[in-house]
Amino acid sequence: MSNTRRQFMLGSAVAAASVSKVAMAALPEPVIQTRPDTMDPLVPDTGRPYNPVVTLNGWTLPWRMHNGVKEFHLVAEPVVREMTPGFKARLWGYNGQSPGPTIEVVEGDRVRIFVTNRLPERTSMHWHGQRLPNGMDGVSGLTQPAIEPGKTFVYEFVARRPGTFMYHPHADEMTQMAMGMMGFWVTHPKAKHPLIDAADRDFCILLNAYDIEPGAATPKVMTMLDFNLWTFNSRIFPGISPMVVRRGDRVRIRVGNLTMTNHPMHIHGHEFTVTGTDGGPTPRAARWPEVTTDIAVGQMRQLEFIADEEGDWSFHCHKSHHTMNAMGHDVPTMIGVDHRDVVKKITQVVPDYMAMGDRGMADMADMQMPIPENTARMMGGDGPFGSLEMGGMFTVVKVRRDQKVGDYRDPGWYRHPAGTQAYEWTGALAEPARAPMPKASATPSPEVEVQVRKPMDHSGHAGH
Amino acid sequence: MSNTRRQFMLGSAVAAASVSKVAMAALPEPVIQTRPDTMDPLVPDTGRPYNPVVTLNGWTLPWRMHNGVKEFHLVAEPVVREMTPGFKARLWGYNGQSPGPTIEVVEGDRVRIFVTNRLPERTSMHWHGQRLPNGMDGVSGLTQPAIEPGKTFVYEFVARRPGTFMYHPHADEMTQMAMGMMGFWVTHPKAKHPLIDAADRDFCILLNAYDIEPGAATPKVMTMLDFNLWTFNSRIFPGISPMVVRRGDRVRIRVGNLTMTNHPMHIHGHEFTVTGTDGGPTPRAARWPEVTTDIAVGQMRQLEFIADEEGDWSFHCHKSHHTMNAMGHDVPTMIGVDHRDVVKKITQVVPDYMAMGDRGMADMADMQMPIPENTARMMGGDGPFGSLEMGGMFTVVKVRRDQKVGDYRDPGWYRHPAGTQAYEWTGALAEPARAPMPKASATPSPEVEVQVRKPMDHSGHAGH
Amino acid sequence: MSNTRRQFMLGSAVAAASVSKVAMAALPEPVIQTRPDTMDPLVPDTGRPYNPVVTLNGWTLPWRMHNGVKEFHLVAEPVVREMTPGFKARLWGYNGQSPGPTIEVVEGDRVRIFVTNRLPERTSMHWHGQRLPNGMDGVSGLTQPAIEPGKTFVYEFVARRPGTFMYHPHADEMTQMAMGMMGFWVTHPKAKHPLIDAADRDFCILLNAYDIEPGAATPKVMTMLDFNLWTFNSRIFPGISPMVVRRGDRVRIRVGNLTMTNHPMHIHGHEFTVTGTDGGPTPRAARWPEVTTDIAVGQMRQLEFIADEEGDWSFHCHKSHHTMNAMGHDVPTMIGVDHRDVVKKITQVVPDYMAMGDRGMADMADMQMPIPENTARMMGGDGPFGSLEMGGMFTVVKVRRDQKVGDYRDPGWYRHPAGTQAYEWTGALAEPARAPMPKASATPSPEVEVQVRKPMDHSGHAGH
Repeated sequence: MSNTRRQFMLGSAVAAASVSKVAMAALPEPVIQTRPDTMDPLVPDTGRPYNPVVTLNGWTLPWRMHNGVKEFHLVAEPVVREMTPGFKARLWGYNGQSPGPTIEVVEGDRVRIFVTNRLPERTSMHWHGQRLPNGMDGVSGLTQPAIEPGKTFVYEFVARRPGTFMYHPHADEMTQMAMGMMGFWVTHPKAKHPLIDAADRDFCILLNAYDIEPGAATPKVMTMLDFNLWTFNSRIFPGISPMVVRRGDRVRIRVGNLTMTNHPMHIHGHEFTVTGTDGGPTPRAARWPEVTTDIAVGQMRQLEFIADEEGDWSFHCHKSHHTMNAMGHDVPTMIGVDHRDVVKKITQVVPDYMAMGDRGMADMADMQMPIPENTARMMGGDGPFGSLEMGGMFTVVKVRRDQKVGDYRDPGWYRHPAGTQAYEWTGALAEPARAPMPKASATPSPEVEVQVRKPMDHSGHAGH
Repeated sequence: MSNTRRQFMLGSAVAAASVSKVAMAALPEPVIQTRPDTMDPLVPDTGRPYNPVVTLNGWTLPWRMHNGVKEFHLVAEPVVREMTPGFKARLWGYNGQSPGPTIEVVEGDRVRIFVTNRLPERTSMHWHGQRLPNGMDGVSGLTQPAIEPGKTFVYEFVARRPGTFMYHPHADEMTQMAMGMMGFWVTHPKAKHPLIDAADRDFCILLNAYDIEPGAATPKVMTMLDFNLWTFNSRIFPGISPMVVRRGDRVRIRVGNLTMTNHPMHIHGHEFTVTGTDGGPTPRAARWPEVTTDIAVGQMRQLEFIADEEGDWSFHCHKSHHTMNAMGHDVPTMIGVDHRDVVKKITQVVPDYMAMGDRGMADMADMQMPIPENTARMMGGDGPFGSLEMGGMFTVVKVRRDQKVGDYRDPGWYRHPAGTQAYEWTGALAEPARAPMPKASATPSPEVEVQVRKPMDHSGHAGH
Repeated sequence: MSNTRRQFMLGSAVAAASVSKVAMAALPEPVIQTRPDTMDPLVPDTGRPYNPVVTLNGWTLPWRMHNGVKEFHLVAEPVVREMTPGFKARLWGYNGQSPGPTIEVVEGDRVRIFVTNRLPERTSMHWHGQRLPNGMDGVSGLTQPAIEPGKTFVYEFVARRPGTFMYHPHADEMTQMAMGMMGFWVTHPKAKHPLIDAADRDFCILLNAYDIEPGAATPKVMTMLDFNLWTFNSRIFPGISPMVVRRGDRVRIRVGNLTMTNHPMHIHGHEFTVTGTDGGPTPRAARWPEVTTDIAVGQMRQLEFIADEEGDWSFHCHKSHHTMNAMGHDVPTMIGVDHRDVVKKITQVVPDYMAMGDRGMADMADMQMPIPENTARMMGGDGPFGSLEMGGMFTVVKVRRDQKVGDYRDPGWYRHPAGTQAYEWTGALAEPARAPMPKASATPSPEVEVQVRKPMDHSGHAGH
């Protein structure tokens, strides 16, 4: 982030806060953010310190204090979200972005949120997971009238329990969530909590999905299943920031899901536990180790682990199509097919079609196929060893031993120590492979061992 | 429920029971139920009392006692299910309804179920989750011959473990479950069980899904994914009864899923724990708090919570399309589009199409669009503050402090105490917002606080 | 399995091992397997004994010992997989099969795997769930260059933690996994582990899904949702071996999911617990009983139970379409429809279409409809009492009290003891039904009991 930009944000925060002294009765001026970079965390007031969260490719909303109440101003409005360099989507969001800014408070805070509707249709705001008065629950029709276009509503309640929550409309939900209206809410514990550990790094990722035809910019809002853009905070790889951590850091990743399907979040090289849900922290005895945890729609999961292995570790949804970007999913298999006739036929439907995929799809990552303007590549993201052939819900956890305290700038790609990387076989083992074996078995193996098939029949009849 | 109706049901139960004295060797006369209201629970015999379950928009099947064996009679047959007022579906079910009646027994009961097939194709009955002799497991072809049309089969076993189970065919399963053939089975513990708490309110909800084209009444049975009716006990909102509870009640909601996808069940304003599955009660140390639990196909989950917050709290599947009713899901986005040309094009395909959705979809809830006969509105359900814009798997938990003991009639909409409801901002804070703050932070906040961006760089390069 | 075949395999294993003495620097000769039968387990070296796993319709890869390192050779290549007798698919796999062979080692083993690429496109190998040096993680582009066609790469690391893992490419993942490239990795604990019980029977099942049009043999690799072949280890019922166990055996079933959706695995007649994930063993206090556990994509779950009920118990995915084989899912409902006109219309699209399904779909299991060559029946599998009307992800756990030690040959169908099987009602109860009641309630029931509807109103207004 450029210095200019940081100054701007500092200025905004101060401005918002200073306004509070002058015009108490006035609506707080909303802070707007229109760039998709990961913003530095918003350092809390010194009275109740906590380690603030980092919203990946997002930001935290500043507040003003008014007679002991923290006041926030959210503005629902059309936004342009750069999903990845070269591809911008027309979404609906809050304060200039989708998802909206993260609201970050402390357990026991009294909070007042002004919600202004600058959309062409009515909306409301539901504070997913919160304990609050029924009338503040934000279900339009049931607990309040909808917020009509141009109007502002006031919500006010005490952040009673610590945890990770979400906010989203509860009015024309299908449309408004398909358009990107959602955000995170983090309530830090006001004191040491037996089930909440201090995290060195604390990230927020909201899973959302869109159906935008290649070349278009506005999501189709009626899609139930066939989404083609699977995103972290409305960004797709390679447009997603890495999560940079120091070796030994306790890392917390808060992942919420407001799509239409489950997302199994997977980490490489480490095991994590789920330490909390939007329902609260999980008791320690009820935790178990995972490398993939399934996050259902309307769920939030806190994943925690000690980053004790150096390297560039993938973190992604394990559904392979969710690490791909927009492309038709109805393309027939070309593997092993002579293309000449097929291309002729397809060209009648898709002009400029070129024969592809007859040897698999990896060529796609490299090829210079003419694609419509404003379209993300199906897969890509260049790494130190070529294309990652990835898109969508994918990023990298960069674990470094020498990351300086307080500096989480991207350290670049990991440099593998000699003898720790897979290599091409050219007739001899690489030198390092004969290095001392770390953590090898205490029981020495004999030089030659012979396995045999166990002399019993387990085969069964194929047809029973 | 009208008095007449209650009398009728009481009569049926008594009739069924009295038959048992006369014609012991005869098939018990099946009790049939054709109305979709939530029936009062069936009070158990005094010998082994338990708090009976309430099947939302359903009922419990009376039995007769025969030489120490509880005899039930289920009749598989075509039924007409009113899914919501104005929309009736032609399904297959049991004893006049889909889902079939709940079977409710006590641990240790010996149970005999007569299953009569009045369908045009063969069927069988599988007692999902039960410990029983292999020959009673109901897998046609594997553990028994199928029950041919017109035939009755006898199943008999001891209800060995307490819990929540399901019943459904294990013959042409795809078709028969897509047509609505399923039901609940509850076995109450015969004595105090260390892992099973007494519940004040105990509800049963079976999740099922249908694919019925607007204007039609019979489900398409080959649909794997694109269902358009997502139901609680084959009812859709606003046709689903509320769950009425007294403040402080321990509430248990038993939810089973026999659709083709996961359903994340979500409650507002409370946290629950999953206290049991169809595999048995969960150990207390293994429970954790949730506001959304994912229920997979073929799973049952018992959700329990203390209803300690007054109000009208939404309870629904969190997949936004599952709280919508039937409508095409392939409609292009109209947001920001000039309709004149598009309407002309669409009208050629869908006669009487009118321009809609250019400002979102909420208009749909109000508009008087000509829709085919026998079609549920896409979303609706009028609340105290206008349309809820909801359909499908949605209902309301009504928590009231003044609900009289033994009276769970619908108390009407919640009346919000002054100062506890979101309100439109008109230039000044509402009076009640300055009321004493409940459970506010012990650490007083300074009048004005300033947050700043933390002076470190977390942004990373977008492309790494 | 024939004797000849077993000799062959023993020979291969010995051959592979003996090679290691002669040509240390040479690439180990890959062991290839082209038959889809369940192979006998590979008995381990006597130094570190463990009970080896049985990969259902699969096999375990022999290794050679080279200076204290266990060397394996995996060859990525096109394969022909017989999914069920009469239906062969053209997939991509390893060493002649899809899925690839199971790699089975002991905690602390140093392992070297040679991966040769005989595919027409580049690939890589990711060791899902393992703790290893970042450079051995197999993410092409990120941690290594891709393995180009014709090349061999060397991976080497210590199997640091015991558990169940998977291997699959991390290059053009969508295509390569849709083509069947995946396998199991089991690391046995080197000593008694407090959270890992010894299992008598230990099975491996990898869930994979394909989209192969009836009559075709190659999967469509762009399919995201509409798969039509749901498989256990790339086999479909009735082509899947039963799991044969002795009554009282502790049975472990390791199930990994590399499809594109959740699979709720369900067992009949028993409850299991999940004792481990690919993240490690679950603490005992965190386990709970299940009859259905949901396995998300990229997850592995160890299901364990004591097989204490004799019989033939179904084990399957509970999504009904996943126990069906390939057939269009867009067929309109025929139930209750006069076919004459419809058939005429459909015949124009699908030649040789015949009226079916007007009474349900069960007829399909029996009928002699002309289907394309090389096509699996939609459902089938003949049992002792007729067609099971099942396909896809379905098999049977055969629990027998008299299975001899060390002999797990298929015992044939279960013979039900008299009086333990559902039977047709013909006017009188069957004799055995009057036999002594096992585990009946201690509290005797009165001869005739009367249930009544509870005198309170739970119905609610349908529309609230």
